Amino acid sequence: MQALAVVPGQADLVELREVPEPPAADGALLVEALAVGICGTDREIVAGEYGEAPPGADHLVIGHESLGRVVEAPQDTGFAPGDLVVGIVRRPDPEPCANCAVGEWDMCRNGRYTERGIKGLHGFASERFRLEPGFAVRLDPGLRRTGVLMEPTTVVAKAWEHLERIGRRAAWSPRRVLVTGAGPIGLLAAMLGVQRGLDVQVLDRVENGPKPQLVADLGARYCTDLADVDTDADIVVECTGAPSLVVEVMERNAHNAVVCLTGVSALGRSVEVDVGAFNRGMVLQNDVVFGSVNANRRHYEQAAAALARADASWLERLVTRRVPLAEFRDALEHRDDDVKVVLDVEA
Amino acid sequence: MQALAVVPGQADLVELREVPEPPAADGALLVEALAVGICGTDREIVAGEYGEAPPGADHLVIGHESLGRVVEAPQDTGFAPGDLVVGIVRRPDPEPCANCAVGEWDMCRNGRYTERGIKGLHGFASERFRLEPGFAVRLDPGLRRTGVLMEPTTVVAKAWEHLERIGRRAAWSPRRVLVTGAGPIGLLAAMLGVQRGLDVQVLDRVENGPKPQLVADLGARYCTDLADVDTDADIVVECTGAPSLVVEVMERNAHNAVVCLTGVSALGRSVEVDVGAFNRGMVLQNDVVFGSVNANRRHYEQAAAALARADASWLERLVTRRVPLAEFRDALEHRDDDVKVVLDVEA
Repeated sequence: MQALAVVPGQADLVELREVPEPPAADGALLVEALAVGICGTDREIVAGEYGEAPPGADHLVIGHESLGRVVEAPQDTGFAPGDLVVGIVRRPDPEPCANCAVGEWDMCRNGRYTERGIKGLHGFASERFRLEPGFAVRLDPGLRRTGVLMEPTTVVAKAWEHLERIGRRAAWSPRRVLVTGAGPIGLLAAMLGVQRGLDVQVLDRVENGPKPQLVADLGARYCTDLADVDTDADIVVECTGAPSLVVEVMERNAHNAVVCLTGVSALGRSVEVDVGAFNRGMVLQNDVVFGSVNANRRHYEQAAAALARADASWLERLVTRRVPLAEFRDALEHRDDDVKVVLDVEA
Repeated sequence: MQALAVVPGQADLVELREVPEPPAADGALLVEALAVGICGTDREIVAGEYGEAPPGADHLVIGHESLGRVVEAPQDTGFAPGDLVVGIVRRPDPEPCANCAVGEWDMCRNGRYTERGIKGLHGFASERFRLEPGFAVRLDPGLRRTGVLMEPTTVVAKAWEHLERIGRRAAWSPRRVLVTGAGPIGLLAAMLGVQRGLDVQVLDRVENGPKPQLVADLGARYCTDLADVDTDADIVVECTGAPSLVVEVMERNAHNAVVCLTGVSALGRSVEVDVGAFNRGMVLQNDVVFGSVNANRRHYEQAAAALARADASWLERLVTRRVPLAEFRDALEHRDDDVKVVLDVEA
C-alpha cells in the first residue's frame, strides 16, 4: 500500500512510498484511512527538524491527525466494521512513568513515550493502519466530514481542562478570553471558549481570507492589532509561539489571569525582557503561565463532545483545502489563507 | 502612644512618633503589641518606593508581621484578654470584588484592597493596635517567641496550597523541591516542603552565617552555586526576585514542573531571554510558572498548623536579631547574616 514518509532529520526527503500492510502487532483494529490533517509539526518533520523513525526503520510514515473507518475488528474489542475512528497519537513506554501508568501519557515525566507519525511509530498517512482498541476513539457518524479535526480539538480540550483546573485553585469567575493566532488550534480554542459562555477575542495578523468571518460567526471578536486587544483577559490561549507575542500576552492581562502556551516555537529567538517587571507583575497579580501539549483519552472524549456541540457547517469551513494524497506537496506548502489543510487519503 | 511611621513616597522619613490610641473603628479587639517582623516590603516603604497612607493621613504606621496579646475583647468575639494573636494583613474593599466577597482577598481582582502597614491602613508597629475579630488569628501560647513568623509563614502556606492545587490538575507525584533564597520566606518554604516529605534543596549565595546550618538542620541541602543545583526539581519556590535567577529556574526543572514566584523585584531589570526556547520548553514539558502574594484566613490556619509541627528551637533561630523599638534604624538596616529581624515593641 502507499504511505507518505520522510527520512527523519533530513530536509524535504518526503515521498509516497510502497510499504507493507500494517503488521498485526500494531493493533487488533484494521482501519482504512479517510483523511489526515496537516499541521506545523508535520512541516517541521518534513523540514528534517523533528521526528524519529521506528527502531530499525530508515523512514517514518507521517500523519498524526487521523480519520478512518474500521475494516476489521475482533468481537471483544468494542468496535465493529464501519465505525468511524480516530487514533490516539501518544503511547506510553512499555515501562511507563508514574503518569503514563495511569493513562496520563500527555504528562509523561521522562520523555520516553512514542507518538504515531512523530516519534518512533509510523503515522496514519497510509491507505490502511492498525490501532489497539485502547488507542482508538469512535466518532459519531455525523463527523464524517470534520472528524479529522478531532486531534487538534483534543489539544485544546486538554488546554481548557488545565486552564480551568488551574483557575479553580482559588475563587474564579473568568469572563474574557484572548486567543492569539487564528489557525486551527486558535479557532478551536476560541470555539471552546464560546461554548463556555465566555467573551472571546482572537488576535491574528491576517486581515483577509476566511479567518475574520470564521471568528465573527463563532460570536467572537477578531482583531489584527495588538494595540486594540483588551488588556483584561482572564484567560489567554497563546497559539502562535511568536516570541514577542508570548512576552506581550504574559504581561497584558487581568489580575489572576491564566495564560496557556500551546505554540511550539523555534529555539534561538532572543528578546530583551524586563524580567524585573515580569516577575513583579506575576507575583503581585497572582498570574499563571503554563504550557500544554498533547492529550490523553479523557481529552479525546471532551473533544468529541465539543465537536458534537459545534455548528457542523462552521467546522467544515475550517478545512480550507482538501488535497488528494498524490498531491501531498501542495498540502505541505503553507498558504496565507489556509486554516486546516487535509490530505484526502481515500481519494 | 508611640508608633513607627513613614511619610509614604518620601525616602527615609521614618520616625517614632506620638500617635493617638487606636480608634474603636479599627476593631473590637484591643491588642498590645509584642513584636513586629521586618521584611523587604518594609524597607521598600521606608525607601519611599511603596506604601500608601490612610485617607486623610500624612503618615503611615508600618509593620504588617504582627504578634500581640489581647487586652480587651468583648464577650461575643470568641477572644479573651491574654490571647496571643496575629492580625491578618489584607482587608477587602467595602464594595468587594467577586473574590474578596468570598474571603479570598489575597486573589483580589481589582486591586482595591487595603493592607495594614502597607496600603491605606496603619500597621502594627505601635504600642497598641485594634483588630476586627474576623481579622485576628489566635495562636497557641507556645508560639510566644516565634509567633511573629506567622505572617511570612502564611505567604508560603498560600504558595504551597496553590502549588499543590496546580500540580494536581493531572497525575502528580512530586519528589524534588528547589527553593531559591534562604531568607525567611525561602527557609519557611523549605520547611513546608520537608514537612511534606519532599527532598528539598535551597540555593543562596551566602556561604557563611546561620543559613547553611539552618538548612542542614531542616534535613534539606544547602547550595551556593547554581551549577550544583539539581535540574530535575518538580517544584521550585523562587524567593529572590533576582531576574537572572528567575529566568534560570523557569527553565532548569523537571517535566511538569510547577514554579512558584514569590519574590517582588524592582522594575527595569532587563535580561536577554531566548523566548523561543522558553516557550517551547514550557509547552513540550507541560511546565507551569505562577506568582503568589499575600494570604487569606485559610492560609493563616495552615500556617499556624505548620508552625505547631515545626521544631520550636529551629524556628527561634530564624529570628537572628531582636531589636528594641527605639533602635528601629538598626532593625531596618539589612545585614548579610540576617534571617528575620524583629522589633521588640514590648521592650
